[in-house]
Amino acid sequence: MHDTNALQTLISQGLNTLDIPAHPANLYGAVQYMLQIGGKRVRPLLTLMAADLFGSRNLGDALPAALAIELFHNFSLVHDDLMDNAPLRRGQQTVHERWHPNTAILSGDHLLIMAYTQLSKCPLDKLPRLLDTFNQTAAEVCEGQQLDMDFESISAVGIDDYLEMIRLKTSVLLGAALKLGAIIADADQEDTKHIYDFGVNVGIAFQLQDDILDVYGDPEQFGKQQGGDIIANKKTYLLTTAFATADDDTRLALNRWLSERDHAAAKVEAVTAIYDQLGVRETAEKAKQHYIQRAYRALDAVKVDQHHKLPLHGLAEMLLNRNH
Amino acid sequence: MHDTNALQTLISQGLNTLDIPAHPANLYGAVQYMLQIGGKRVRPLLTLMAADLFGSRNLGDALPAALAIELFHNFSLVHDDLMDNAPLRRGQQTVHERWHPNTAILSGDHLLIMAYTQLSKCPLDKLPRLLDTFNQTAAEVCEGQQLDMDFESISAVGIDDYLEMIRLKTSVLLGAALKLGAIIADADQEDTKHIYDFGVNVGIAFQLQDDILDVYGDPEQFGKQQGGDIIANKKTYLLTTAFATADDDTRLALNRWLSERDHAAAKVEAVTAIYDQLGVRETAEKAKQHYIQRAYRALDAVKVDQHHKLPLHGLAEMLLNRNH
Repeated sequence: MHDTNALQTLISQGLNTLDIPAHPANLYGAVQYMLQIGGKRVRPLLTLMAADLFGSRNLGDALPAALAIELFHNFSLVHDDLMDNAPLRRGQQTVHERWHPNTAILSGDHLLIMAYTQLSKCPLDKLPRLLDTFNQTAAEVCEGQQLDMDFESISAVGIDDYLEMIRLKTSVLLGAALKLGAIIADADQEDTKHIYDFGVNVGIAFQLQDDILDVYGDPEQFGKQQGGDIIANKKTYLLTTAFATADDDTRLALNRWLSERDHAAAKVEAVTAIYDQLGVRETAEKAKQHYIQRAYRALDAVKVDQHHKLPLHGLAEMLLNRNH
Repeated sequence: MHDTNALQTLISQGLNTLDIPAHPANLYGAVQYMLQIGGKRVRPLLTLMAADLFGSRNLGDALPAALAIELFHNFSLVHDDLMDNAPLRRGQQTVHERWHPNTAILSGDHLLIMAYTQLSKCPLDKLPRLLDTFNQTAAEVCEGQQLDMDFESISAVGIDDYLEMIRLKTSVLLGAALKLGAIIADADQEDTKHIYDFGVNVGIAFQLQDDILDVYGDPEQFGKQQGGDIIANKKTYLLTTAFATADDDTRLALNRWLSERDHAAAKVEAVTAIYDQLGVRETAEKAKQHYIQRAYRALDAVKVDQHHKLPLHGLAEMLLNRNH
C-alpha cells in the first residue's frame, strides 16, 4: 500500500510531464492554464487508490488512466463553464472569459483528445475494458449535463429525475475513476462493481451536501455566495424536495419567489424560510446519509483486508464532512 | 476487390445501425440530425478502400474505424460551424442555429466520444497503432482550426503558414482515414506512409481547388455565393499569394478593399481584378497540380497491383475535377 501523499506526487508529476506543445499558443495556452489552476485531483487519486487497493504491483501502470480521468474532468469543466456562462472556476477566470468562447470549445475538445491519448497508453490486455468504461461514462456525463440544462426550463423537476441527473453529471465519473484502477489491478468483476458503486454513491452524497451547503453552509468557509443556487433558480435536492412536499399555497409562494429577479437577499431569506418550514434540510441530510451508507456497504463488500480500505475511507470522510 | 457502391452501402448500414438513444432528446436529436443530413461520406470510404487495396479479407474489420472517421468529421463540423457562426451546413440549418450553441457544444462532444467508441471495436492487436494515428490526427485538426481562427486577425498570412493550416485542418484527416484502413489490412510501414501521403496531398489539392472555385467557379454549380471568401476576408491561397507577390501600391489597394464592409459586389470585382492582374489563379492552379502529382506519386509507390488502385484514382479524380 502507498501513502496518499506519494500518490498525489505521482499525479502531479504525471500532469507536469504531459507533453503540451507551445504552438498554437491560443489553443495550448488555454489547455495549460486549465491544468495549472489545479483543483483537488480527487478523481485521479481514486484511480491510483483503487489500483493500490487491489494490489497493483506497479502504480505506473495505472497512472495514464488516472491522468485520463483528470483530463476528461477538465474537458467537461471547460465546456460546462462555457455552457453555464460561469465567470470563475477555482477562483480564477474561466477559459471562455479569459480568452474567448471559441478557445473554450477548442481547448476543451483538445483536453478530451488528450484524455484518450493517455488511455491508449494503458496495458493493452486491459484496453478494451478500460475504453468501454471510459466511453460509457463519458456519454453519461454528456447526458447529465444535457439534463441539467433541460431542467432550467422545467419549473418542477421530480426528485428522482434530479437524482438521476446528478448521478450522470457528476457521480459516475467518480465510480469510473475507481473502476479503471480496479480493472488495471485485475480485481474480479464483483469487486470492480462494488468499488464502482462506492464511487457513485459517494458522488451523489457529495452533491447533496453541496446543495445543502449552498443554503446552510458558512459562506466564509464555503467560498461561495450564500443561497447562490436559490438566486439562480438552480434545481437542487432542496428545491425538488420542497416542490414535492409543499401544499398548494406553499408551492404558489415558492413559484412566486422563483420568478423574483431583483431582490436577491429577500428571495434567499424567503425560500430558506419555506425550506425550514418544510424540513427539507433534514430530508436532504437523511438522503445524504442514505447514499453514504450505500457507499460504505459497497466498500465493505470488497474482498480485501479492511485495513487496506482506510485511505479510501479517509478520502470519502474528507469529501463528505467538509463544511466548505 | 469490392465495388465502390458496395462499400458505400456498408457505410450507410453502419451509420444506420449506430445505437443512438432517444433520450435526452435535445442531445441525441442533434446527434441524429447531424448524421442524417448526410454528406458524401468520402472519409469512411477512404478507410474501406484502403483496407480493400491492401487485401483485407473482411471489410467488417475496417468498418468501425471508417465510422470513427465519419463521426470525428461530424464532431469537427458541428464545433467548427459554431465557432465560425455558420448558418448552413449541407444546405440545412447548422446544429447551433436549429437548437442552441450549447446543444452544438454537447452534441459535438458526444460525436467525438462516439468516434472513440467505434474505434474501440477495432481488432485489438491493431488498436494501439489505430489510436495513436487517430489521436495525433485529432490533435492536428484542432490545431488547424485554431490557426484558421488566428489568421482572421492577421492581415497578411504567409503562403507556407496557410498551407500548413489547411494541411492540419482538413488534409491530415483524409490521410488518417486511409492509414487506418492500411493498418487494419496489415499493410507494411512504407505502404502505410505512402497511402497517408496520398490522402494528405489530395486534401491540400482539394482545398486549393475550393479556394479557386470560390472566385472562378460557376456559382450555379458551386452552390455558394461567388467571391464569398473575398467578402468575408477569408485567408485563401489566392489572397496569401496576392499579398506575397503584389507591389506596394497593389498591396495598399488590396488592404483598402479588405477593409470595405458594405459594397460586396464591387469588392469581389476589384479583388478579382487584382488577382487577375497578379496571375494568382494560374499560381494556384499550378500549386494544385503540384499536390496532385505528389498524391499520385505516393499512390504509385504503393506496392500493390496498379489495377487495384483504380477506385482510389477514381475517387481522387472525382474530388479534384469537380467544378461545383
